[in-house]
Amino acid sequence: MTSKQRVLLLGATGETGGSILAGLLEANQFDVEILVRPSSSEKPAVKQIADRGVNVRVSDLNAPENELTATLSGIDVLISAIGPHDLLQQKTLVRAAKSAGVKRFVPCAFITIAPPKGGMMLRDDKEEIYNEIKRLVVPHTIIDVGFWHQISFPRVPSGRVDYAMMMPKATIHAGGNAPNILTDLRDIGRFVARIIEDDRTLNKYIYTWSDVLSENEIFDIVQQVSGEEIEREQESAQEIEERLAKASSAVAENSTDPMNRIMLYMAQYDYSKYVRGDNQPAYAKFLGYLDARELYPDLKPISFRECFAEVLDGKGRLPYH
Amino acid sequence: MTSKQRVLLLGATGETGGSILAGLLEANQFDVEILVRPSSSEKPAVKQIADRGVNVRVSDLNAPENELTATLSGIDVLISAIGPHDLLQQKTLVRAAKSAGVKRFVPCAFITIAPPKGGMMLRDDKEEIYNEIKRLVVPHTIIDVGFWHQISFPRVPSGRVDYAMMMPKATIHAGGNAPNILTDLRDIGRFVARIIEDDRTLNKYIYTWSDVLSENEIFDIVQQVSGEEIEREQESAQEIEERLAKASSAVAENSTDPMNRIMLYMAQYDYSKYVRGDNQPAYAKFLGYLDARELYPDLKPISFRECFAEVLDGKGRLPYH
Repeated sequence: MTSKQRVLLLGATGETGGSILAGLLEANQFDVEILVRPSSSEKPAVKQIADRGVNVRVSDLNAPENELTATLSGIDVLISAIGPHDLLQQKTLVRAAKSAGVKRFVPCAFITIAPPKGGMMLRDDKEEIYNEIKRLVVPHTIIDVGFWHQISFPRVPSGRVDYAMMMPKATIHAGGNAPNILTDLRDIGRFVARIIEDDRTLNKYIYTWSDVLSENEIFDIVQQVSGEEIEREQESAQEIEERLAKASSAVAENSTDPMNRIMLYMAQYDYSKYVRGDNQPAYAKFLGYLDARELYPDLKPISFRECFAEVLDGKGRLPYH
Repeated sequence: MTSKQRVLLLGATGETGGSILAGLLEANQFDVEILVRPSSSEKPAVKQIADRGVNVRVSDLNAPENELTATLSGIDVLISAIGPHDLLQQKTLVRAAKSAGVKRFVPCAFITIAPPKGGMMLRDDKEEIYNEIKRLVVPHTIIDVGFWHQISFPRVPSGRVDYAMMMPKATIHAGGNAPNILTDLRDIGRFVARIIEDDRTLNKYIYTWSDVLSENEIFDIVQQVSGEEIEREQESAQEIEERLAKASSAVAENSTDPMNRIMLYMAQYDYSKYVRGDNQPAYAKFLGYLDARELYPDLKPISFRECFAEVLDGKGRLPYH
């Protein structure tokens, strides 16, 4: 490549988008810009990014295709880290990316390995976008990351890590033996910066990871590092299935209530990760994913153990806050 | 592999299934059996196959899963060449294949390269089955074949090849320059016999081909081989789009009428092959397909030219008759 790729990032103020923005800037080899909706353009978080010298493009995602096409003018790589409730809003963006000649579209994936359809509502919505990308023959890369370290550790009795937990709990799901792919939230962007510079990942699925751990292994690490004995609550496979059925009914009754959707996302994640055991390298391989660690052996991701030690040291952060 | 694989074929009396049966028997390295519905078990075509020493298993595809699981007992490879209207009847079969421990399920694909969703109704139905296979983690191979030589040649003025044509026409679609993947119907089974013995094709998409030709190239070959000048009728992209819109409306009004569905299949094929240009190696690669010719360089498929010369020589056969 003779000149820097111009990369436009949607969702830069979110958790995943924030990691991607940091990774792109750290790589120091892209012209990075962000895409924000008119309603967000005056937000402090957007101003902070602009203050770092990042150009901000403003567009309504529901604008007509030709307007969005103009917004994407000159963009080589478009990365979407849009929120889970807005996934289907990427539809016009796919068409606009095609019209604007974007060389690689990275649609919002960035979740666990899961069946393309019928396993998780969140994944089903993403699949609609992937199918549109394939129908329109848009060059793309689909990047999944497993589950974040930052939301994978249990509470310790002293309460020392409660400050960094959305729900301070110490639950083992369905026996706790299913291995799960984990990535440190902060590494997502570092992987993305590699992936979008790599021809081998064009039109491919790829997953990132630092560890593959079961819940029992995670609890063991947390006990070792903290020196605290954890009382392990147990939620059986059957209890997860019941929770899943309840959450499905609630969404069936009122599908637009964000809380209903979030409860279903969580139940489906637990069912997929711990009962089905989807979020594993073997299933990723079955589904045709590349392994980012095989492509970038020199990239040393932050391990779960390191991340948890930092949290214990007071250097963690509560996600989504 | 220490012992012969036991292969069960559904749809053996159809065109694609017939080719697969012949290919499997010719390979002489499988224990081949066929699966037929109770309503078909007394058909002469089934009797003929049984008379060749092929074991026949009989089962209703709408039977409960445990009944179908028993039917699949001892089967290593299950190949489905079910008819286009019955594709969704494979759903219980997928679950039964999982329960019975089938080592490879080859669902009914065997069409052109096309978008997974939103391009062709026929492909959309297949995608539902592929998604079920992926959700249930059933080992599989998806084999597409492009378009058959046998339905790709135009009428010549003398009428010499009319006997082997379903619709004796000489139409060039949308300018006739889109290249298309072609396979001789008789080679499908030969490719399948290779593919199901090959670990490299497990959980993969793969396409077979002998030629990649545009309609203009096909017409040129037919003129050369026959020595006849063909009057080329032209159907423009816009006319195809109009035909497609009409066929879509007819199906929307009455989706169960087989003739409505067939007219839509045909219009969608023409739109996909000639207007969108889907049925090409580049799009197959984009979608992640393997190329069977790269895997089996020693397999010499029958070329379009050879096939047409045979038809001209009176050795052709009208498909579906």
